Amino acid sequence: MKRLCIVGSTGSVGQNCLRVVASLPDRFRVVSLTAGKNLIVLAEQILKFQPALIAVGSQESVEPLRQELRARGYRHPLTILSGRVGLLEAATLPDVDFVVSASQGVTGLEATFEAIRAGKAVGLANKEVLVVAGELVMRVARERGVEILPIDSEHSAVHQCLRAGKGHEVRRLILTGSGGPFLRTPRREFDSITPVQALKHPIWKMGGRITIDSATLMNKGLEIIEAHWLFGLKSEQIQVLIHPESMVHSMIEFQDGAIMAQLGVADMRIPIQYALTYPDRVTVNGDLSLDLTATGRLHFQRPDVKRFPCLELGREALEKGGALPCALNAADEIAVEAFLASRLRFSRIPRVIEEVMSQTPMVPLNNLDDVVECDQGSRQRAREIVAKAED
Amino acid sequence: MKRLCIVGSTGSVGQNCLRVVASLPDRFRVVSLTAGKNLIVLAEQILKFQPALIAVGSQESVEPLRQELRARGYRHPLTILSGRVGLLEAATLPDVDFVVSASQGVTGLEATFEAIRAGKAVGLANKEVLVVAGELVMRVARERGVEILPIDSEHSAVHQCLRAGKGHEVRRLILTGSGGPFLRTPRREFDSITPVQALKHPIWKMGGRITIDSATLMNKGLEIIEAHWLFGLKSEQIQVLIHPESMVHSMIEFQDGAIMAQLGVADMRIPIQYALTYPDRVTVNGDLSLDLTATGRLHFQRPDVKRFPCLELGREALEKGGALPCALNAADEIAVEAFLASRLRFSRIPRVIEEVMSQTPMVPLNNLDDVVECDQGSRQRAREIVAKAED
Repeated sequence: MKRLCIVGSTGSVGQNCLRVVASLPDRFRVVSLTAGKNLIVLAEQILKFQPALIAVGSQESVEPLRQELRARGYRHPLTILSGRVGLLEAATLPDVDFVVSASQGVTGLEATFEAIRAGKAVGLANKEVLVVAGELVMRVARERGVEILPIDSEHSAVHQCLRAGKGHEVRRLILTGSGGPFLRTPRREFDSITPVQALKHPIWKMGGRITIDSATLMNKGLEIIEAHWLFGLKSEQIQVLIHPESMVHSMIEFQDGAIMAQLGVADMRIPIQYALTYPDRVTVNGDLSLDLTATGRLHFQRPDVKRFPCLELGREALEKGGALPCALNAADEIAVEAFLASRLRFSRIPRVIEEVMSQTPMVPLNNLDDVVECDQGSRQRAREIVAKAED
Repeated sequence: MKRLCIVGSTGSVGQNCLRVVASLPDRFRVVSLTAGKNLIVLAEQILKFQPALIAVGSQESVEPLRQELRARGYRHPLTILSGRVGLLEAATLPDVDFVVSASQGVTGLEATFEAIRAGKAVGLANKEVLVVAGELVMRVARERGVEILPIDSEHSAVHQCLRAGKGHEVRRLILTGSGGPFLRTPRREFDSITPVQALKHPIWKMGGRITIDSATLMNKGLEIIEAHWLFGLKSEQIQVLIHPESMVHSMIEFQDGAIMAQLGVADMRIPIQYALTYPDRVTVNGDLSLDLTATGRLHFQRPDVKRFPCLELGREALEKGGALPCALNAADEIAVEAFLASRLRFSRIPRVIEEVMSQTPMVPLNNLDDVVECDQGSRQRAREIVAKAED
């Protein structure tokens, strides 16, 4: 019986996570949930899973949530906390042994970090945690002997492929990506791409930022950084291949030339359940069997780094290290926000990031305070650059 | 340091095996080799690897081999034996700890069986061993705690994929096959297929029978049986998919919907070395890295069992069990021989096998004598059926 905390339970990954938990009632108990403002969904989750503790984003949400639960006749004892203190409490409860880090952005960073420090196993869906603070997080995970299990489909695939050999036998990682909605769009049309067009991801239904990141290939850039930290691979060992069908979720080539690949239908429950039940594999509720003959063909091509410079920005940030990955992540979030608000052209997203990176001093981030400072400074810089671009 | 016996050292697998051994001199020592009549190649192997014992097919080959070695100035001590006794001695020498079973047909069966009985680990390239005597061989392997490592590319792929989960978590095996040279040939042309056409395999360079077996898909039928015994999978768990590029060598679907696949260039040294160095993976000499963007696409389709009935004959033999797989294998060998000698039409190969199977009593094969008897009887029956077809 694993006792869970889900950080970000009302988001897409959090909700899928609870679907998996509901389908395997003998394996899991939900001890704590954290969420931002989506109190209706949160109340439903509380009714269904009866956690002991809830952390909401801010103090103003506590009373409305209590009222909602009262109105629905919920009678079980429940602690409701809020803000940073609540989040940390939820993620480090002695009763919890597995924390799913599924909140977006850097919000979940500190909670994830403290959960690891407290010796909890972590299922990581929030890739920013490793992008902005990979060195710090992995160091504490090593010190505490904590295993970090990836929850996104690519890194889950890598984790599975790695089981077919030893770490030092790996030659390269082939990260696959669908290529996003603009895989075949000519570069000259990139200036006029609208948010509505960019939000149409061909395969996965996800949140706003990650969908735009998929369209710019920044998502793969971030995943290169994440893979580096999770699996100890060097930048030059990590290759990105475009694979529009998104059936092969990633591959590992070993030094004997054997390539292991993991394939499956595009359903987040597979990597989520893999992380939750590891080292066991359990039948997923519903028919999640991939029929390769239905499509009949799988395509692979190299990414076009001229049309999608974000990919190489991610790699550059990893290779230069220090504060650059954190700056890259912050700048991307602001640039994507501006694009979604129609205040920045699609083609300008990489330029904003590049400019923020060029203004970022090459200093190491020695602790979470450094990370938060770099994150905020980079956001400020990105906002200024976006504002200038608006003129 | 693994001390090797290679049964069938002058065949295609045997020669590739020795290329692997030569590239990793610190890992292997060749203790014994067995071969049939190819004394020139055998003499070269002896000069290069200086084994302690050689077994040749028949007594008449012993003196010519000695002369050949003397002519080349070979001075090392060497025991040369012949026939069945020599073969068994080579495979069971106390000094040997790993036996590569790479001879064709049922010749190597007894040697492989006795090697396992003597507690040697076995690398199995000769699939007939498990097709004709899977139950007997696996029983003694279990009793002796001996691991059988597959050497053909498909089952090596399966072995690798299985490392990503536990045995009881497997839902199905997807065995891939190129589909052979007649994948797109209409059925009405099957009558006029010539041996020269059938010997042109699109991917692998192999011996005569296995190439024809690839053209009829009997090869996949035999592999279904082999997979059943090697991995303990039921017939209904084993699916065959045609994959003309032969880059994906096979796949395992686990019960959580995750599919693991092994890919690589079509070079026998990869599965051979995998078996020889297992559980380690070692760099293979030469550039054996697969570039998925070179082809750019991988195709998958269901096999056409109407045009290729041999596939389902293999499955039927497995499901009915007893003597049928042995009869199937013997009949196939005779039918293929007759086809290669232009004494039987391509389209008649499955009919010969089917008729032999229908004449085979449903009895268990309780020991190797039973197997040999069934094999010989089935060959005789097949020859009679072929002779009738010639009339």
